[in-house]
Amino acid sequence: MRYLTAGESHGEVLVGIIEGMPAGLAIDKQKIDDMLLLRQSVIGRGERSRTLPDEAKILSGLNGSVTTGAPISVIINNGDCGRGKFGFYRPGHADYAADIKYGYGDPSLGAERASARETAIRTALGAIALQLLQELGISVRARVLRIGGVATPEFDALDAATRCDVRYFDEIKTLIDETAKKGDTLGGKIELTVSGAIVGIGSHVFFDRRLDGRLCGALMSVPSVKAVEIGLGVGFASSTGRQVVDEWENGRRKSNNCGGIEGGISNGEDIVLALTCKPIPSVSGLKTIDRSQKEVVTGKVRGDVCAVPAACIVAEAVAALELASAIMDCFGGDTMAELKERYEAKGALCKK
Amino acid sequence: MRYLTAGESHGEVLVGIIEGMPAGLAIDKQKIDDMLLLRQSVIGRGERSRTLPDEAKILSGLNGSVTTGAPISVIINNGDCGRGKFGFYRPGHADYAADIKYGYGDPSLGAERASARETAIRTALGAIALQLLQELGISVRARVLRIGGVATPEFDALDAATRCDVRYFDEIKTLIDETAKKGDTLGGKIELTVSGAIVGIGSHVFFDRRLDGRLCGALMSVPSVKAVEIGLGVGFASSTGRQVVDEWENGRRKSNNCGGIEGGISNGEDIVLALTCKPIPSVSGLKTIDRSQKEVVTGKVRGDVCAVPAACIVAEAVAALELASAIMDCFGGDTMAELKERYEAKGALCKK
Amino acid sequence: MRYLTAGESHGEVLVGIIEGMPAGLAIDKQKIDDMLLLRQSVIGRGERSRTLPDEAKILSGLNGSVTTGAPISVIINNGDCGRGKFGFYRPGHADYAADIKYGYGDPSLGAERASARETAIRTALGAIALQLLQELGISVRARVLRIGGVATPEFDALDAATRCDVRYFDEIKTLIDETAKKGDTLGGKIELTVSGAIVGIGSHVFFDRRLDGRLCGALMSVPSVKAVEIGLGVGFASSTGRQVVDEWENGRRKSNNCGGIEGGISNGEDIVLALTCKPIPSVSGLKTIDRSQKEVVTGKVRGDVCAVPAACIVAEAVAALELASAIMDCFGGDTMAELKERYEAKGALCKK
Amino acid sequence: MRYLTAGESHGEVLVGIIEGMPAGLAIDKQKIDDMLLLRQSVIGRGERSRTLPDEAKILSGLNGSVTTGAPISVIINNGDCGRGKFGFYRPGHADYAADIKYGYGDPSLGAERASARETAIRTALGAIALQLLQELGISVRARVLRIGGVATPEFDALDAATRCDVRYFDEIKTLIDETAKKGDTLGGKIELTVSGAIVGIGSHVFFDRRLDGRLCGALMSVPSVKAVEIGLGVGFASSTGRQVVDEWENGRRKSNNCGGIEGGISNGEDIVLALTCKPIPSVSGLKTIDRSQKEVVTGKVRGDVCAVPAACIVAEAVAALELASAIMDCFGGDTMAELKERYEAKGALCKK
Repeated sequence: MRYLTAGESHGEVLVGIIEGMPAGLAIDKQKIDDMLLLRQSVIGRGERSRTLPDEAKILSGLNGSVTTGAPISVIINNGDCGRGKFGFYRPGHADYAADIKYGYGDPSLGAERASARETAIRTALGAIALQLLQELGISVRARVLRIGGVATPEFDALDAATRCDVRYFDEIKTLIDETAKKGDTLGGKIELTVSGAIVGIGSHVFFDRRLDGRLCGALMSVPSVKAVEIGLGVGFASSTGRQVVDEWENGRRKSNNCGGIEGGISNGEDIVLALTCKPIPSVSGLKTIDRSQKEVVTGKVRGDVCAVPAACIVAEAVAALELASAIMDCFGGDTMAELKERYEAKGALCKK
Repeated sequence: MRYLTAGESHGEVLVGIIEGMPAGLAIDKQKIDDMLLLRQSVIGRGERSRTLPDEAKILSGLNGSVTTGAPISVIINNGDCGRGKFGFYRPGHADYAADIKYGYGDPSLGAERASARETAIRTALGAIALQLLQELGISVRARVLRIGGVATPEFDALDAATRCDVRYFDEIKTLIDETAKKGDTLGGKIELTVSGAIVGIGSHVFFDRRLDGRLCGALMSVPSVKAVEIGLGVGFASSTGRQVVDEWENGRRKSNNCGGIEGGISNGEDIVLALTCKPIPSVSGLKTIDRSQKEVVTGKVRGDVCAVPAACIVAEAVAALELASAIMDCFGGDTMAELKERYEAKGALCKK
Repeated sequence: MRYLTAGESHGEVLVGIIEGMPAGLAIDKQKIDDMLLLRQSVIGRGERSRTLPDEAKILSGLNGSVTTGAPISVIINNGDCGRGKFGFYRPGHADYAADIKYGYGDPSLGAERASARETAIRTALGAIALQLLQELGISVRARVLRIGGVATPEFDALDAATRCDVRYFDEIKTLIDETAKKGDTLGGKIELTVSGAIVGIGSHVFFDRRLDGRLCGALMSVPSVKAVEIGLGVGFASSTGRQVVDEWENGRRKSNNCGGIEGGISNGEDIVLALTCKPIPSVSGLKTIDRSQKEVVTGKVRGDVCAVPAACIVAEAVAALELASAIMDCFGGDTMAELKERYEAKGALCKK
Repeated sequence: MRYLTAGESHGEVLVGIIEGMPAGLAIDKQKIDDMLLLRQSVIGRGERSRTLPDEAKILSGLNGSVTTGAPISVIINNGDCGRGKFGFYRPGHADYAADIKYGYGDPSLGAERASARETAIRTALGAIALQLLQELGISVRARVLRIGGVATPEFDALDAATRCDVRYFDEIKTLIDETAKKGDTLGGKIELTVSGAIVGIGSHVFFDRRLDGRLCGALMSVPSVKAVEIGLGVGFASSTGRQVVDEWENGRRKSNNCGGIEGGISNGEDIVLALTCKPIPSVSGLKTIDRSQKEVVTGKVRGDVCAVPAACIVAEAVAALELASAIMDCFGGDTMAELKERYEAKGALCKK
């Protein structure tokens, strides 16, 4: 499975093509749009840059609503095509390096493709991958663990419908509003959980087939993600083996510190990762330079106050794409029926 | 640039092939062996499993000692070929998942390839990549930040020759010795720094060309690594934009919280990553199961007390391979002279 | 450089994304449309299935008309969306194998993606690659050598504007018309010539980097192509070394039997390939089977009488994509200026 | 499935690594050596450059003689390590282009890696792939169709043991001997047949997954191959659709002009390809140039009189690698048992 995306932040559309999906998977377009809406509408987004909800249009690869095995192409219209130019390099963004690399002669051009707007189309493709995973009994869920100084431990109590939406936490809402008023932004932390995956996805035999490396590489490519942890993550540094090894008891594991992956292979437990997002560096009044190396301060450029809740949705999509790809590598399958049969036969191996 | 490795922990040899190196690079074989020795001899390794120092033998790809552009193959003899079989799945290792996945019918067979012994050959290939980077003025250095409960801040003061060798810290040595006596193991944290890279490696235009994702994916594939952070890493979670953005002042950055990568592209600052290693889970007396799902306890299986110092060397090698590959993607180059000229011309773009 | 295409013969659109183009290449959209029109309007096409000329719409990757290094996405509207279903497997088409492979339960569904309609979007992407090659002084030209029983040797005399259009050969026109009347179709042969490429594209060091293998693999993937020859091609079989080796004389080659590639590397001569196309197997009245394995005869399904002239255009596009990709592998280049400078510096090596 | 090879014609060894083989395949090493011996000993080879028979040594990837899923590495010792240097570019070889590309400053260095000696290690890896195919009931056989002016139609009558060995054809033996006496070399043609493959390998949905393109690209990468044809091949050029379409009759095809591949997918018939090999251009007395562009004549450089019989063996190996890879893409399979079960289940779909 492979995919390409295209499109700029203020271009006409975003475009994606995913190649290698099996035939016979019924695609519920509404689920794609629901995911796009969630990405767009969770708390933390800036003044509404898009007036209309994103909507995916599937242009190919289906017969009716069912996949044919042919490449699936998806398009999302950008409602907002007026590009705001600016004359300085925003620290923390691609602006400076992209201008030098590609010789744009324009500090604001790199932002067109570097923008997290691109994650909308990855979300759409990921929403398709999620439907494949769902057929196999696998779910992928991300939730906010922390925004700025505030942890969100009660989150688990929320029902699924509001899963990534932390707006009901008064404390978070207040924090975001006050940060916005100060013209500042907030980082945070996300937990991503894959449930229902069988033993045996990924492989220990070659480094680039290890599931941990694959998921981590893909998730680190999401804009603003600056750390990826598996299981206990950074907590492993100050621990000893006896403290953290996941022993068996009564036919199951007593803990899941390794985050569901041992030796680069899924071990049947939940796969648990944590992502840390930096605060969006779109802040005005920062010291920077312009193209002539003259020192200037950054002006106002539209951006989100806190991308963490939205990044939950993107992380689900990206993890789903990578996981589905790893599964196709193990099982192949021209049709969804074949894939499902093979996957379930494998899953039965580690059950009594 | 691409490479494959082969070989088992107790097989006759380890083998590696790297394809895509430019012609005209003089390879100093001693530097490869030095790196292999360092990996082998740093503090924390278990009772000496290898009686002789690892030595790389280059079998192809050179004319005299100079690359020809042809694939370079490297072999390392394993001194120790007797495989110790065991009848239980060691939690934290590939044993359980590998046996189910590949149908071995032997809990100890997966360990042959999952073993970190494989990192010796990646180190040898990485030592070649490091020589390419050195020609471009780039260095890659890892150091121990923490082992178990003990941070190692004075490490910086050590001279280069002892760089990853923390044996001179009495506190660490005592900790490792005492942990070994208890039959336990230790996790830790590593900082990896790439110095001298120009602006423009990696790209913001496509997610799998982002340098952060590439480095992170490769490093997470190193056995025992469970977290990868860039720059401020997990510290970003509780920060605001104004606190952490790397402003310019007097023609340079005031800080490097982003770790030298903005928008997936190197920005000319040091590229700084941190890796967290779990404690090696080779501990006896743990509750586990055997092939018949019967509960047993783990017996004694040889392993290191603390892999963190050795992982520094491996991390340098793996990062060098990935960085060299990203550079070849940007610059191509049939010969080292071409590569160097192109790289330096690009580097000159962002200098006054 | 890599690209994906999507879209069905009777879908709404064709979509393509090409990733890895350097920044700074001015794209002349008219040249893309000209190439699409030529593909569509050359002699041999069936009763007009498309009432309107194909037109490429570039959706991303440009700033004005200049590439930015970001993925370029292209869309072509299919004027004609009504899919004609049929209940038999057409021998010579994907129908039978695709139905079994993907479990369609519909003999006519595979044709949607197997159709040569897909080559329209490859032509559009190839027309972009051709503009990159043109900047480097490279041209790619295909011409008809034979259609059915009639060779077209005088073709060389035609001026460039009519290059692939053999309609002016009365003999060919008559042959095609008469074949159409009989409800039959015609195969033929194409010569493809790449002029202006420097020495050194491709490589002998690894089999999948050999330029001959790369071009041949890509061209054989064009529907209806059943043979690819380089230089003297099948003529080599009955020759001896002394008869066919391309000796030097007065500083240049006396012949070009090897077709411009030696050891998998371009040698500075014209790269010359020949493609043989089978007659389109869309013929009615053939004995075949239906889904229940019952013997039936094929009915009328719309198709071309002779795809050979159209395949010339497609072959140019596909060869251009592969060649541009091989060049990017050798030279890299974030910008067209860099690529051009590096390419020309290399080219200067083999000139006095 | 992927593989890398390394090693020079006069280096110490050839090395190969194949990654992605399923676990549980018993490897018969003798079959590898038999194939290596056949490649080495068939008629047409020059004065014996290798005094000892090639022998493959498998260094990893097996438990006993059974694959574990880990990368399999293979080594072949080169008996003959003294490199003969020469000071002129041999037309028809990589010498000239390789020297300019890689800046060797030595006309004879490119030959080290460009030499067909490299095909010995591809043969060894291919012999492993053939054993995987054999488990699935698939055979791959090549035979000589023509050498120079002499066709070998009676070849079919030979039994399998001598299959590629045309030494018993007096006419061929005489031709080769006489050509050798004249210091000349001979081209020829090979037919490659894959028998027993089920319907559905490869795919019509994306160009680089088409089985015809994949096989053709791989086979064209074999040194000296200059044309690849499928089924009727170049014969299609002068035919009409009605003449060549493979109709059904009594539940099977009446002909196999399409060579077992329709729409890029195997259709259950034999897959039949033809390869044309040029005469080895190692002939003395040819006009050429040296490094200073001075005109000289080629001297004597060791080489084969006719590589066509040996190329049969190489072609079998290369086709087997590509076909096995295409099969793994469709079926995945961590173990041979899984692969076989899935493959046979698919195969049962198109049988009554």
